[in-house]
Amino acid sequence: MKKVITFGEILLRLSTEKHLRFSQATNFNANYGGGEFNVAVSLANFGHKAEFVSRLPQNDIGQSALQEIRKQNVDSQNMLFGGDRLGIYFLETGAGSRGSKVVYDRAQSAIAEIETGMIDWKTVFQDADWFHWSGVTPAISANAAAVCLEAVKVAHEMGLTISADLNYRSKLWKYGKEPKEIMPALLHFSHVILGDLDTAFFMTGKEKVHPDYQDTESLPALYDTLFKEFPNLKIMATTLRYSINASHQKIGGILYDHKNIYTSPIREANPVVDRVGSGDAFMGALIHGLLQEDNNLQRTIDFSVAACCLKHSIAGDFNLATLEEIQQLASGDSSGIVSR
Amino acid sequence: MKKVITFGEILLRLSTEKHLRFSQATNFNANYGGGEFNVAVSLANFGHKAEFVSRLPQNDIGQSALQEIRKQNVDSQNMLFGGDRLGIYFLETGAGSRGSKVVYDRAQSAIAEIETGMIDWKTVFQDADWFHWSGVTPAISANAAAVCLEAVKVAHEMGLTISADLNYRSKLWKYGKEPKEIMPALLHFSHVILGDLDTAFFMTGKEKVHPDYQDTESLPALYDTLFKEFPNLKIMATTLRYSINASHQKIGGILYDHKNIYTSPIREANPVVDRVGSGDAFMGALIHGLLQEDNNLQRTIDFSVAACCLKHSIAGDFNLATLEEIQQLASGDSSGIVSR
Amino acid sequence: MKKVITFGEILLRLSTEKHLRFSQATNFNANYGGGEFNVAVSLANFGHKAEFVSRLPQNDIGQSALQEIRKQNVDSQNMLFGGDRLGIYFLETGAGSRGSKVVYDRAQSAIAEIETGMIDWKTVFQDADWFHWSGVTPAISANAAAVCLEAVKVAHEMGLTISADLNYRSKLWKYGKEPKEIMPALLHFSHVILGDLDTAFFMTGKEKVHPDYQDTESLPALYDTLFKEFPNLKIMATTLRYSINASHQKIGGILYDHKNIYTSPIREANPVVDRVGSGDAFMGALIHGLLQEDNNLQRTIDFSVAACCLKHSIAGDFNLATLEEIQQLASGDSSGIVSR
Amino acid sequence: MKKVITFGEILLRLSTEKHLRFSQATNFNANYGGGEFNVAVSLANFGHKAEFVSRLPQNDIGQSALQEIRKQNVDSQNMLFGGDRLGIYFLETGAGSRGSKVVYDRAQSAIAEIETGMIDWKTVFQDADWFHWSGVTPAISANAAAVCLEAVKVAHEMGLTISADLNYRSKLWKYGKEPKEIMPALLHFSHVILGDLDTAFFMTGKEKVHPDYQDTESLPALYDTLFKEFPNLKIMATTLRYSINASHQKIGGILYDHKNIYTSPIREANPVVDRVGSGDAFMGALIHGLLQEDNNLQRTIDFSVAACCLKHSIAGDFNLATLEEIQQLASGDSSGIVSR
Amino acid sequence: MKKVITFGEILLRLSTEKHLRFSQATNFNANYGGGEFNVAVSLANFGHKAEFVSRLPQNDIGQSALQEIRKQNVDSQNMLFGGDRLGIYFLETGAGSRGSKVVYDRAQSAIAEIETGMIDWKTVFQDADWFHWSGVTPAISANAAAVCLEAVKVAHEMGLTISADLNYRSKLWKYGKEPKEIMPALLHFSHVILGDLDTAFFMTGKEKVHPDYQDTESLPALYDTLFKEFPNLKIMATTLRYSINASHQKIGGILYDHKNIYTSPIREANPVVDRVGSGDAFMGALIHGLLQEDNNLQRTIDFSVAACCLKHSIAGDFNLATLEEIQQLASGDSSGIVSR
Amino acid sequence: MKKVITFGEILLRLSTEKHLRFSQATNFNANYGGGEFNVAVSLANFGHKAEFVSRLPQNDIGQSALQEIRKQNVDSQNMLFGGDRLGIYFLETGAGSRGSKVVYDRAQSAIAEIETGMIDWKTVFQDADWFHWSGVTPAISANAAAVCLEAVKVAHEMGLTISADLNYRSKLWKYGKEPKEIMPALLHFSHVILGDLDTAFFMTGKEKVHPDYQDTESLPALYDTLFKEFPNLKIMATTLRYSINASHQKIGGILYDHKNIYTSPIREANPVVDRVGSGDAFMGALIHGLLQEDNNLQRTIDFSVAACCLKHSIAGDFNLATLEEIQQLASGDSSGIVSR
Repeated sequence: MKKVITFGEILLRLSTEKHLRFSQATNFNANYGGGEFNVAVSLANFGHKAEFVSRLPQNDIGQSALQEIRKQNVDSQNMLFGGDRLGIYFLETGAGSRGSKVVYDRAQSAIAEIETGMIDWKTVFQDADWFHWSGVTPAISANAAAVCLEAVKVAHEMGLTISADLNYRSKLWKYGKEPKEIMPALLHFSHVILGDLDTAFFMTGKEKVHPDYQDTESLPALYDTLFKEFPNLKIMATTLRYSINASHQKIGGILYDHKNIYTSPIREANPVVDRVGSGDAFMGALIHGLLQEDNNLQRTIDFSVAACCLKHSIAGDFNLATLEEIQQLASGDSSGIVSR
Repeated sequence: MKKVITFGEILLRLSTEKHLRFSQATNFNANYGGGEFNVAVSLANFGHKAEFVSRLPQNDIGQSALQEIRKQNVDSQNMLFGGDRLGIYFLETGAGSRGSKVVYDRAQSAIAEIETGMIDWKTVFQDADWFHWSGVTPAISANAAAVCLEAVKVAHEMGLTISADLNYRSKLWKYGKEPKEIMPALLHFSHVILGDLDTAFFMTGKEKVHPDYQDTESLPALYDTLFKEFPNLKIMATTLRYSINASHQKIGGILYDHKNIYTSPIREANPVVDRVGSGDAFMGALIHGLLQEDNNLQRTIDFSVAACCLKHSIAGDFNLATLEEIQQLASGDSSGIVSR
Repeated sequence: MKKVITFGEILLRLSTEKHLRFSQATNFNANYGGGEFNVAVSLANFGHKAEFVSRLPQNDIGQSALQEIRKQNVDSQNMLFGGDRLGIYFLETGAGSRGSKVVYDRAQSAIAEIETGMIDWKTVFQDADWFHWSGVTPAISANAAAVCLEAVKVAHEMGLTISADLNYRSKLWKYGKEPKEIMPALLHFSHVILGDLDTAFFMTGKEKVHPDYQDTESLPALYDTLFKEFPNLKIMATTLRYSINASHQKIGGILYDHKNIYTSPIREANPVVDRVGSGDAFMGALIHGLLQEDNNLQRTIDFSVAACCLKHSIAGDFNLATLEEIQQLASGDSSGIVSR
Repeated sequence: MKKVITFGEILLRLSTEKHLRFSQATNFNANYGGGEFNVAVSLANFGHKAEFVSRLPQNDIGQSALQEIRKQNVDSQNMLFGGDRLGIYFLETGAGSRGSKVVYDRAQSAIAEIETGMIDWKTVFQDADWFHWSGVTPAISANAAAVCLEAVKVAHEMGLTISADLNYRSKLWKYGKEPKEIMPALLHFSHVILGDLDTAFFMTGKEKVHPDYQDTESLPALYDTLFKEFPNLKIMATTLRYSINASHQKIGGILYDHKNIYTSPIREANPVVDRVGSGDAFMGALIHGLLQEDNNLQRTIDFSVAACCLKHSIAGDFNLATLEEIQQLASGDSSGIVSR
Repeated sequence: MKKVITFGEILLRLSTEKHLRFSQATNFNANYGGGEFNVAVSLANFGHKAEFVSRLPQNDIGQSALQEIRKQNVDSQNMLFGGDRLGIYFLETGAGSRGSKVVYDRAQSAIAEIETGMIDWKTVFQDADWFHWSGVTPAISANAAAVCLEAVKVAHEMGLTISADLNYRSKLWKYGKEPKEIMPALLHFSHVILGDLDTAFFMTGKEKVHPDYQDTESLPALYDTLFKEFPNLKIMATTLRYSINASHQKIGGILYDHKNIYTSPIREANPVVDRVGSGDAFMGALIHGLLQEDNNLQRTIDFSVAACCLKHSIAGDFNLATLEEIQQLASGDSSGIVSR
Repeated sequence: MKKVITFGEILLRLSTEKHLRFSQATNFNANYGGGEFNVAVSLANFGHKAEFVSRLPQNDIGQSALQEIRKQNVDSQNMLFGGDRLGIYFLETGAGSRGSKVVYDRAQSAIAEIETGMIDWKTVFQDADWFHWSGVTPAISANAAAVCLEAVKVAHEMGLTISADLNYRSKLWKYGKEPKEIMPALLHFSHVILGDLDTAFFMTGKEKVHPDYQDTESLPALYDTLFKEFPNLKIMATTLRYSINASHQKIGGILYDHKNIYTSPIREANPVVDRVGSGDAFMGALIHGLLQEDNNLQRTIDFSVAACCLKHSIAGDFNLATLEEIQQLASGDSSGIVSR
């Protein structure tokens, strides 16, 4: 059993029901989620020790988020308490050719106002094997970016494997810095990166490329640009998403280890119950695959794609599919027959 | 900003949830809608001044309808109050090969018992640019038909553009007149008609034809039959609906201006959240297109089809898609990606 | 009007809403259903006299089940009352490639503890034309199996037509007997059997076969193995299910009368609202077809497949589609247009 | 086991939830009920054979009403089918000093358009012991009043006991007749009348009185005025209602048999879950009491008051309290302890 | 018909259902409300022209608030659009001895970041008779306080009647100023003040007093302290609240016009459906009373108390009781009988 | 921070909403609870280390119970997994004079089939200060009683304080033993007992007494009968419940320490949101009080009564009131004012 630490934000998610538009809603479903926490939930479900480090306001909303963390069997022993509010995101779930819509309301959240030195990373990383962060956290505020860098450095010193999900959200980078000013220093220490090449090039200040993910011959050269820049990088993975419409998605994946390209069969998610968190499902499954001793990278990318696909059938931010369900789909069985 | 007046009925819509059959329902969703009001909502959403003229009973159900009109930013300054009841329609939402089911309960509604002279159409049409009516109103009662004719005549005198949606509902024509006895006089003053050729021929007392909407060569001759009969007619449009099943529809459209046939690409609505009101969404978009100064008929038919298609993804009678969302689909992007 | 008796278990069905996983549910929809009762509901809907014989606990849950039986117009005049509890099954409704999940909680139910002699079958079968049972009942307990045999024998003596749905559920056969020790004696008296060949061979202790249901040439020989063993057998039917995923099913059917093979066109159920009870919908429609005087077996299999398909669009255990709706689909019209 | 026939209207009841005002409601709870049917439900619950005679439209709403009748174990073998619509009433449930609000929408209902001769009352009353009607039915339409008189006369000829609940609703008498023109002929044949003296005097065209129900000395003289006019009258009962506010009611009752006054202790209903149908609960309990062989009138009035009081704790139109629960409260135990 | 302008904040209100604690909630009811807007809704319901001036963010949440404003028939023609977010408050509705709980999340709201000069008050007050503000607005931010002062000054110049609800919320005054530094300048121009003496003294920097509201002899002297300080003050009113528990409140009121004390009978709110907004209901009713031509101050205070009391029976922030309902309670009838 | 272990059953609780009767319910709220677990939740909320020991089936229902345990911050490190089913109880929530109704469905639950030796109590009690059990556990089955005795003995050996809630449920003792055959051996080791004297005498085989809890003079002699029999007994407490009706309860309490009687003021719970678990709220608060260092028994009984009273305002089995809320009520403030 491995221990994985994730660091980031958990938000109150307020979503409309039954595909209602915001203006039609008279109530919101209330859930809690956020990229890095979602990864921790996946890992806890797969049987790992998962711990989530963040900062929660000391009010009833923060307390409810804490209860959700506990419910999902994710450790919260190093949680910070303070700040004024929990970040919120509003979600309107689309259908057919009408896409889902997210309204962010996460300014001045507790985690945005975190400060370096608040978290004792040495204690946090005691006995831990893996540290995961994502590009959302340094996007929130200069403070959050600084704490993220602090974490990555200590994790590196203490020998943890470090993974990053690039997770570029243009609406979040509003505190005066651009990704290319912040991300390279953070990625420098990362061994595993999830993201597409466009995003990776953009966030690290490179010129735009137009990768053809079907052309597996030409891909290594593009990926290698990043491997050259980031000396610790061992694995880079990319989620491929073909969006037929909001209710019908096709998911593929590519994994590259500086030697070989591994690609997964395309899986269909139809209908889509909830696609938020499907990238995090991919990330959690990727870490799980890489934590296996047999180091089977083909199985890892197949498992990651199946996890991502199954997440689309589950409401809320979390991938609550079981190991067995994911393995069944990874093995090619998408029949969805009744289990009884 | 143009001002459009629509006249007709607003009903209480009682629909079962979650595809339940009527006999399974222990509650009904309560909304308000009706063909001509739905058109007004579309136009208000597109930024026009829209006003709805009708008659509401002076009880709490009528009052609730009035609040919905206000909420949708539709003017109600010339609303009449009186009569005994608001018309009702019950809706059971189908799925797959089981179609939706409507039970009408609209006899003796306030609008059915309206009388000529009750509405001061000269005042209503002051400053207005466009008047829209549909074939549902003259179907309700002889009185409603008479008031509709009254309106059309005044609108004509005052120089408004007049549009009509044929909207044939066989279950409604029960007061002893057939469409062909009533509709021609009304259509005589209309500049824009929405409807398929079958319906138009039937409602104007012509022999049945079997138009092939793929055969754009032969269509003008059929449409011209109507252009000859109705001297004010400038534009006729037809919604094409290919019903794969209740949850999967394909939508196209044809527009003819006595010179050219304009056809739109087919758009898919899959899954269908709610198809009631999708024809009204087409109509509202058609008026919007024709109100544009550039008079681009190809863009108008493409926009109308996209509006109709997107409506299927929205619960309730109204098309709450934004101009931007419709234009995005009209331009061919149906990917439905998350907006965040 | 024919009178059909069905015997078996009715359960409290607790299902999660909106595709939620069990761990996400804060409430359960509460319905009542069970294979043999579902068949009775279909027959009552088709206009037959249907009676359900079972045993209900004398508490509020049993009483609620009784009210559902009455609501569905199924006779309960010979219902037994006693025992401790109503059986329960929990249902998590899947979507896409995630299948639905059933958790049974039906041990020690009232019907499992029924005893021979409790039911006066001679009285029950007075005026009845048909008796239906399924393989679920003998699977519950030795007692239930014994009462089932008792029923079948009396029905045989009194000249009723007897039908059986094999309905193999591996999780239920837990009281120490295998199907092959119990089922042959029961099937001996049956005139109509619904089931696939694999199951029929397994439950009657034969070696596994790999039938190719497309190969209608070779099928008679396989079916004949059963016709030889069961001298009363007149009709055997098989539901063909092609599971694209949990939300998309294709349904076909085969009927064999010891002479000819009748096959139905494949029908699509997409999306699936609820697939539980779709086999019972097939069974109920099959009995209805065989009760018709014209003995049209092609129409019977087409009708059964259409009924099964339409059931997928209806929530709960019952097929609440009307005769007209099923006939429309059986005739090839799956367009699902709005009825208004 | 006695057989009681009730005749009148069953309506679709659309009520707001959680004390919402009509203008706040986005859905309505859908139930079915109506004075005379509610009485039948009470009697079925108490173990009698209860049958309801009415007229239902042949649409899905009428069918759903029929299913509710069956569910409540009330016989519907003589139900008529026809007409255009089921009557509706909208209910907004008040709280505290804000009273509940009813909006009737029952014009042109199937029962309002019934005609004499449609029901074969001789067949209906075969084997029946009791016939119950209420003042709501003759208020609906001249036709309904005529059929009610028809029924009362046949019931009288066939020797049934006849009961009437005066049930005056001023908003309903709109077809041109006043109660005093219609009710005396109907009451002429009734043996049991439920109503207060004010209403009885008004509906029979007498001068207004101001009865003091605490003054049991003076009451007999007032009641005797009615006993003198109506020769078949044996029992008159009055429900006393002290309305503290919409959520707190006190209920008493008086029964007079032309000799003695029987009064019940006052019972408190606090909080009120739903007071609609509480008068019908009183009526149903009164009939049950009078059907007992011991003819204990004190027990009858106590039971009727307890039934009326308990109804206030039950949502919907029906009194679903059990005999035992009512007897417990009638005996003075209002502690409401948990039964487990 | 008088025209009243109110200025302040409208918030998204997220409340738990069925008395659930925050940690139990899986969804929130979503409404829109806020002190000054609630007053506008009351006035619109009473038949006045009411306009609400505020600032809304240009996102879907702000748009939904705007739709609610329209639905309530409140004018929004001078609404500003801009800023990042709509303020939120979370509400947990208590019961019995457990009080309700509010969690504010309104920092950095659109209105908090308003700036002087943004609103053209001269245009806003054109044709207006009355301007209403409350102590919540200057508590939000220095900017909001400055704009409030700007408004009050222009209103004064233009001769409007000005009213203020003191509405002290200790959790809101967080930008570095104390009420006594801000409020006196604002109150200087106000003609009508609603508040208790404690609050008024505190907010204007006076020493604490212990008023005995039963002692109507001594009250004038205390109120006169304020009349001396604020030369424009004509009427001061105080809501008296006796909190038996969270579900049972008693409401009284005092009005003083520098000459006489007017007191209202105490009214009971039991049970309390929702007490948020009950002070605003009092304020709205007070303005309505003072807008009447007969200047009957006793009727005004009685009406205000009845409005406040009835609000407790209505879910959400608004007093949706009608004039007639309030007058009925003000006249002493709290029986809450069913209106049908 | 003290560590408390509780042992017993956690059940799936299926309750009807909005005071519906079982026969009206179309869905059930799903919660998890049970006497001994409820006590653990209270203690966790009060800041203690609480651990719950039980046995859960390895299916999704057992897993959901486990998630609830985690959510409530109760340790489950020694949980056993096995058995067939989780016990269920159905709850119909009464109102006014209609009491709530519980239907137990807990036969053959995982905990009922536990066996001695399955739990390593020495490990469980490592570092623990207190062990709590209740009379429900030995009532379930002979096995559960045996394991309970096993636990009590080890706890005694290891020096833990042991508490017991007598919790007599007549419907549960069905395995052939009477309480008096089982309970004395268990109570022998207990230091704290919660229960009324009637129950204590009945369960320990003594003659019935009629204690007058107002007569604090005579009570010690009765309590002393138990202190004499059980040598380890230090504190006995009794909850006093005065049931006005199902929606209005009055709660008091008595505590006796073999020297003095401590009584609490009576607290009112009106209205009652949910009274299930209120006894467990008392028990949890009692343990909390006794764990305080100052040993203030008056404060302890006041706190316990306030906790019990507040629980009635909270839905579900758990007392989710905070320390501060309980202390506020214990100090006499029941005003329930809004916290904002």
